[in-house]
Amino acid sequence: MNSRTSVNDMSGDVPEISRYNREAVLSLPHASEVSIFDTTLRDGEQAPGIALSPEDKIRIALALDDLGVDIMEAGFAASSEVERDTLKRLMDAGLKCTVCSLARSRTSDVDAVLNTGVGYVHTFIATSPLHMERKLRMTSDQVKEAAVSTVEYARDHGLRVQFSCEDATRSDPIFLKEVYKAVEEAGAESVNVPDTVGVILPRAISSLIKDLKKDIRIPIAVHCHNDLGLAVANTIAAVEAGASICHVTVNGIGERTGNAALEEVALNLYANFGIRTVDLSKIMHTSALVERVTGFPMAFNKPIVGRNAFAHESGIHVHGVMCDPLAYEPFPPELVGAGRQIVIGKHSGEHSVKGRLEALKVRFPEDRMPELMDAIKSFAVGGKEIDDMELIAIAENVLTGDQNKEKAVILDGFAVFTGAGVEPTATVTMTVKGEKRIVSGIGVGPVDAAMNAIAKAVNPNMTLEEYRLSAMTGRSDSMCEMTVMVKNVQDDGQLSVGTAVGLDVVRSFVEAMINAINRDFAKIRE
Amino acid sequence: MNSRTSVNDMSGDVPEISRYNREAVLSLPHASEVSIFDTTLRDGEQAPGIALSPEDKIRIALALDDLGVDIMEAGFAASSEVERDTLKRLMDAGLKCTVCSLARSRTSDVDAVLNTGVGYVHTFIATSPLHMERKLRMTSDQVKEAAVSTVEYARDHGLRVQFSCEDATRSDPIFLKEVYKAVEEAGAESVNVPDTVGVILPRAISSLIKDLKKDIRIPIAVHCHNDLGLAVANTIAAVEAGASICHVTVNGIGERTGNAALEEVALNLYANFGIRTVDLSKIMHTSALVERVTGFPMAFNKPIVGRNAFAHESGIHVHGVMCDPLAYEPFPPELVGAGRQIVIGKHSGEHSVKGRLEALKVRFPEDRMPELMDAIKSFAVGGKEIDDMELIAIAENVLTGDQNKEKAVILDGFAVFTGAGVEPTATVTMTVKGEKRIVSGIGVGPVDAAMNAIAKAVNPNMTLEEYRLSAMTGRSDSMCEMTVMVKNVQDDGQLSVGTAVGLDVVRSFVEAMINAINRDFAKIRE
Repeated sequence: MNSRTSVNDMSGDVPEISRYNREAVLSLPHASEVSIFDTTLRDGEQAPGIALSPEDKIRIALALDDLGVDIMEAGFAASSEVERDTLKRLMDAGLKCTVCSLARSRTSDVDAVLNTGVGYVHTFIATSPLHMERKLRMTSDQVKEAAVSTVEYARDHGLRVQFSCEDATRSDPIFLKEVYKAVEEAGAESVNVPDTVGVILPRAISSLIKDLKKDIRIPIAVHCHNDLGLAVANTIAAVEAGASICHVTVNGIGERTGNAALEEVALNLYANFGIRTVDLSKIMHTSALVERVTGFPMAFNKPIVGRNAFAHESGIHVHGVMCDPLAYEPFPPELVGAGRQIVIGKHSGEHSVKGRLEALKVRFPEDRMPELMDAIKSFAVGGKEIDDMELIAIAENVLTGDQNKEKAVILDGFAVFTGAGVEPTATVTMTVKGEKRIVSGIGVGPVDAAMNAIAKAVNPNMTLEEYRLSAMTGRSDSMCEMTVMVKNVQDDGQLSVGTAVGLDVVRSFVEAMINAINRDFAKIRE
Repeated sequence: MNSRTSVNDMSGDVPEISRYNREAVLSLPHASEVSIFDTTLRDGEQAPGIALSPEDKIRIALALDDLGVDIMEAGFAASSEVERDTLKRLMDAGLKCTVCSLARSRTSDVDAVLNTGVGYVHTFIATSPLHMERKLRMTSDQVKEAAVSTVEYARDHGLRVQFSCEDATRSDPIFLKEVYKAVEEAGAESVNVPDTVGVILPRAISSLIKDLKKDIRIPIAVHCHNDLGLAVANTIAAVEAGASICHVTVNGIGERTGNAALEEVALNLYANFGIRTVDLSKIMHTSALVERVTGFPMAFNKPIVGRNAFAHESGIHVHGVMCDPLAYEPFPPELVGAGRQIVIGKHSGEHSVKGRLEALKVRFPEDRMPELMDAIKSFAVGGKEIDDMELIAIAENVLTGDQNKEKAVILDGFAVFTGAGVEPTATVTMTVKGEKRIVSGIGVGPVDAAMNAIAKAVNPNMTLEEYRLSAMTGRSDSMCEMTVMVKNVQDDGQLSVGTAVGLDVVRSFVEAMINAINRDFAKIRE
């Protein structure tokens, strides 16, 4: 079996994606059942920069439920009235998954959970010397007593309980196991091992979990943070060692550098070990929803769901992907509901550029392609990905650049007027192919008025397809950068792009328009 | 030794940061020497969305050299004339590190390197069935022959050589070792194991490296991609297994989801194993430079260098950090040249808010703090981190909100005029505390003119400290969002913030200004 057929054969039980993972796969204690404990709405929401309304939480909760998470930690009941109301609403939302609330190891926190109707509580208390001495100011006996009595209290009130030793990975191993055993006896249905500040190594969490498995009979969960970039690897290593519940968040959001990312954990479990957790085909959709609702932007190079995850630009890679996508992709993007993207940029080859021009219906003479490729390379230096507007502009430049043709349109003057209680009005005076024209127009604002006046003067069929004003921050005299894309300067459906930079928003717009119009007139038509 | 002292004791040889890593640390084959092979300027630059000019590359190269990387893969000589020129310039830049160029396994690529004066070449050819059959269309014998003859050619011309089997982790294990052994005999000084599409597991790369170490005597490098989120873990596992050269990029940029991040690899090696590579204190600076120059934005939750890496907002975490920063930090941010940040948001406590108001010199009555905290929580719902401008605006709202005071300033009308060949001019008619005023002003653009007119009418000492216009994309009638921060509406040095949304950029600016002025007048002064 070569690697290609094995990757494509995603219907099988263990789709091995690297030859070298075979040993790891074979040594896994039979086809493990792994539960996904999602904490996007609790640890994820705690991230600096994220704050969700009850409606936001419900929207995300419905998507997570649809994705197929097993347990959803949706909040911390004791934190506020709003939080409790949200938990109540989630209990009425008809979710298939189990809803859970966080609680400190104190009776009042459990009471807050009982108040909401949520039937599953995740209690915790810190067990590391640092946390006990400096934050809690409690002895280890007091900590253990609080852990046990809270679990008992929750059980007595009919709650299912998962218990965590916060900062487990910096705790004393003997004390840690002692606490876990005590809460098991007190009726916890599972225990969780949080790597609170993200400092453990995969090999170390493996031996920790194996050691706990010797004495703990209830399922073991892990909750890994990403401070040293190892959250996913630690989660996978813990599963290999016998943990069966993974705490994760969508897009890896969470305190500081976040938690193990749901999508990365799910893909690793499936692609390497054949363990099925969530519905993989809904991953991209869920990730995009969480990004949008949280307003927490994903890195372009975020594994699985980042915009570059299946994007290719450099010649060797685009060529490889054209021969066979799996040459430079770990698995087909469709598996996670994503798509492939061929990017035009400094490293692009002719194949990519021609394909994009065709898709844009831009006619470009074959014999001038080498010039265009050079222009793209020099434009992209210091630049970014070349988007459609930019590609059109560069192609136009190549076709018009060295001709020094007389300009078809000369702006002789313009005046724009706006205010309170007046219709924004613009008047332009221009010479169009030698003929003087003075035209005025109105609009919803000065930019819109100017557009309407210019169109009247040049070609009433001309339309503004898009305009972009770069974000401005500064004092009132800061620079602005304006890009416009117009269509039909000459009634042939072609697009033309113009840019201008300046201090005056309105003036820059007018200049960018004139620039776009002249570039269109200067084009060599076939 | 408790975990706290061990974390702080970064001067020692092995600063153990988790109790559970001890076994991993102890079993490491003595204090290994690990070299950093940085490929920010080659694989990093190939990322869709990144394109560096020669000047950009030189700027980053100087920073990397200062950081202390050992080998710097700075480009791919055969790709273009510009690339060769850049490599030549780097050879003249007096760098302490070794400069390297990538080359395919063909004579012409090596000639291109020889042209530049670079003395170290990284040659590669793919060895996986998929790449050989579908991309290269070569037999395995042909591949091996090309690998060997290119290494020999490079050695014959005086180059130092590192050789890679591209897609090693999906290659046949027996063939892979055969090729590595052959290039070792041909004079390569090291071999590299690329996980080209990021599909190997830490345990698997560990056994692969251990197996290669049995027969390969020259140093082994690893080059891990992050498609499944395991690039750093795989790199560390490879080092534990005996690899001694790590291919990395700053911020983990690179093809698709990128390469193992330099900063994460360096911190793991140091914090867990006491292995010193680069100058850790320069990490933050280098990372920020690369982010700026590449224009490739880092995730807020990027490990080590993301803006949230040492940021705290939620009550429990801020309290913990106030007791002892290490309660919720893996190591002190100063170690990597970073700083700690207490963020104001929905999850904040009073302590954080008071501290920030003091820093901003905003006087806020103690007895109204609970109202302010409520206002912050409700403002931050659906919102983001509350920055200084927003915090001032919320505090003002609390102080003015329920009073329905008559507005101090009423805008009766305004007119703004701009055009070609005219000074942008604004006239405002307003009633300031019952008194009618008509004032005009000029400026560099209509926004600046309006600002000057309003200041004349209200208070000539008033200044615009900042204004923000959100980026606009769309047709000419799209909405804009304007925020202004003014100072000295009443000569007391206080800041006031106003916002407006609308279709007309100039009108929105004027409305936001009036809004800010009225809020200042409505404030209760102490």
